Amino acid sequence: MHSESYFRELIEEGLSKLDLPREPSRLYDPIRYMIGLGGKRLRPSLLLMSNELFDSDPIELLAPALGIEVFHNFTLLHDDIMDKAPLRRSRETVHKKWNPDIAILAGDTMFVLSCQLMMRVKPEYLRDVMNTFLKTSVEVCEGQQYDMDFENENEVTIPAYLNMIGLKTAALIGCSAYIGALSAGAGRENAGHLYNFGKNLGIAFQLHDDILDAFGDAAKFGKQVGGDILSNKKTILHLAAMENAGSKEKAELNKWLQAADADPASKVEKVIGIYESLHVHESATAIKDQYFEQAMKELADVKAPASNKEMLYKLTERLMVREK
Amino acid sequence: MHSESYFRELIEEGLSKLDLPREPSRLYDPIRYMIGLGGKRLRPSLLLMSNELFDSDPIELLAPALGIEVFHNFTLLHDDIMDKAPLRRSRETVHKKWNPDIAILAGDTMFVLSCQLMMRVKPEYLRDVMNTFLKTSVEVCEGQQYDMDFENENEVTIPAYLNMIGLKTAALIGCSAYIGALSAGAGRENAGHLYNFGKNLGIAFQLHDDILDAFGDAAKFGKQVGGDILSNKKTILHLAAMENAGSKEKAELNKWLQAADADPASKVEKVIGIYESLHVHESATAIKDQYFEQAMKELADVKAPASNKEMLYKLTERLMVREK
Repeated sequence: MHSESYFRELIEEGLSKLDLPREPSRLYDPIRYMIGLGGKRLRPSLLLMSNELFDSDPIELLAPALGIEVFHNFTLLHDDIMDKAPLRRSRETVHKKWNPDIAILAGDTMFVLSCQLMMRVKPEYLRDVMNTFLKTSVEVCEGQQYDMDFENENEVTIPAYLNMIGLKTAALIGCSAYIGALSAGAGRENAGHLYNFGKNLGIAFQLHDDILDAFGDAAKFGKQVGGDILSNKKTILHLAAMENAGSKEKAELNKWLQAADADPASKVEKVIGIYESLHVHESATAIKDQYFEQAMKELADVKAPASNKEMLYKLTERLMVREK
Repeated sequence: MHSESYFRELIEEGLSKLDLPREPSRLYDPIRYMIGLGGKRLRPSLLLMSNELFDSDPIELLAPALGIEVFHNFTLLHDDIMDKAPLRRSRETVHKKWNPDIAILAGDTMFVLSCQLMMRVKPEYLRDVMNTFLKTSVEVCEGQQYDMDFENENEVTIPAYLNMIGLKTAALIGCSAYIGALSAGAGRENAGHLYNFGKNLGIAFQLHDDILDAFGDAAKFGKQVGGDILSNKKTILHLAAMENAGSKEKAELNKWLQAADADPASKVEKVIGIYESLHVHESATAIKDQYFEQAMKELADVKAPASNKEMLYKLTERLMVREK
């Protein structure tokens, strides 16, 4: 079994060797730039690991793995336009460095490229793989729409939020694991368990990320503490707080949500103070743990040599205990 | 053989019955709206006709035909954002009626839907059909990028322009004819002739459209005369004029191209006057005729019953002599 860093290098190398045309340069330069921004390459690594889990040679699945990563980067590119994000991995976003029109078209093209890469699976798995990939792509779009809808909704529920992150973030992680397993000839039942493993892990991962924003070790996390609080995101912490809050605390949370001119440091401090008084850390962690445990159960149910599962357990552990 | 109007109705009905989800409504309402704006439904009609040409039952290809139309509408939706177009078929564009973020995401989702519909071909043609469709999708994006590039370029050549419209407009028309023929079991040679027929026809069609803008019968055409002149588009007329022009006329054409505050009616009149003095109508028509004749030659080379080709000749005639 190969390590995560082995797969990550394989993917970086594969991405750098993607045979993209030079012209029109204002289409392909932004695509190369976006793909070159780096990242954890979690989804393609998981795809390849889920393949190797069944003693298949994952190198044959490199193209579809790159497809998953190009697709993920396409969604980030378009999300950045919608979020008006100036930076991605500490560098200018495509719509800032070029312009929004260029970013729209580069994203569209990346989606096509991702389909072309995904098509390079064995013929016997082509239809199933493509159907799963396309179904997931629709889900990612739906999740993004719900996420945008939530910005203007006052009564977002925790189940609605979990559904949203399930679509926007976790479905593609599940899809990656599914495609890797299916293409190893693991059968639909095993592939289904891996899908559920990935999807539950993806939800737990997003909840973990939400929690770290307020309760992580900022230095290790490498991010501003309370970034989500400052951008008024309705994360699991905010939603759990609203659920646990009495009318007085609700009013106060809503006041901070609308306080555009508040001093950032005091806003973060005050909101985290409210979270602490409402035991939000514990509530959110309890939900996260449910998804995490379900992910572990699904992985346990996969019929594959226990020793082969080790790398997936390691990946999981690294994702979930990171930077705490 | 069925008529174009038969296919058009079939497609309208198929589009209205697409089983799109209701939620999230701010994702699917714009998609339904965009698809419901109507249009000639040229591409899916051509796909179905190219299928029936070989005595195949085109009803089996309805889903891929709808896929071509949904894809075409996705490109129009994103193009409208980039062009900042307020209207599409006399109704508000999606980015105006909702907002650009909604329009980006609705377009992304329509592209996925088009792939899902396209996947519904017979297994033996799946890979070839999808490869052709995805290759064409990349070409459409490249064509759109060249089109945007040309807005800021002073020295666009006629070959570069023909390449651009070949990618942006004609490739999808060729692709439609190809998929229809291939899925009828017509073989790659016949399907190749139909691709070339569609692509050459598509270029001729776009050139015809360019010519009608200045030299069409406005009343029948249902459009403002000189719309391209007023929006400073580098159409075949402008490019042929620049090629035929001496330095005096070049300077005058460039002056009008940069005249933002000119009275619209005089601008159109003056520019058409220059076009006439430079015999631009004749130059552009000669180029158009070359592509049209090549299209006819390709159709003649298709091995299919002559009587079956009649509907395609009728479609071609209607496209090329329309509103003159």
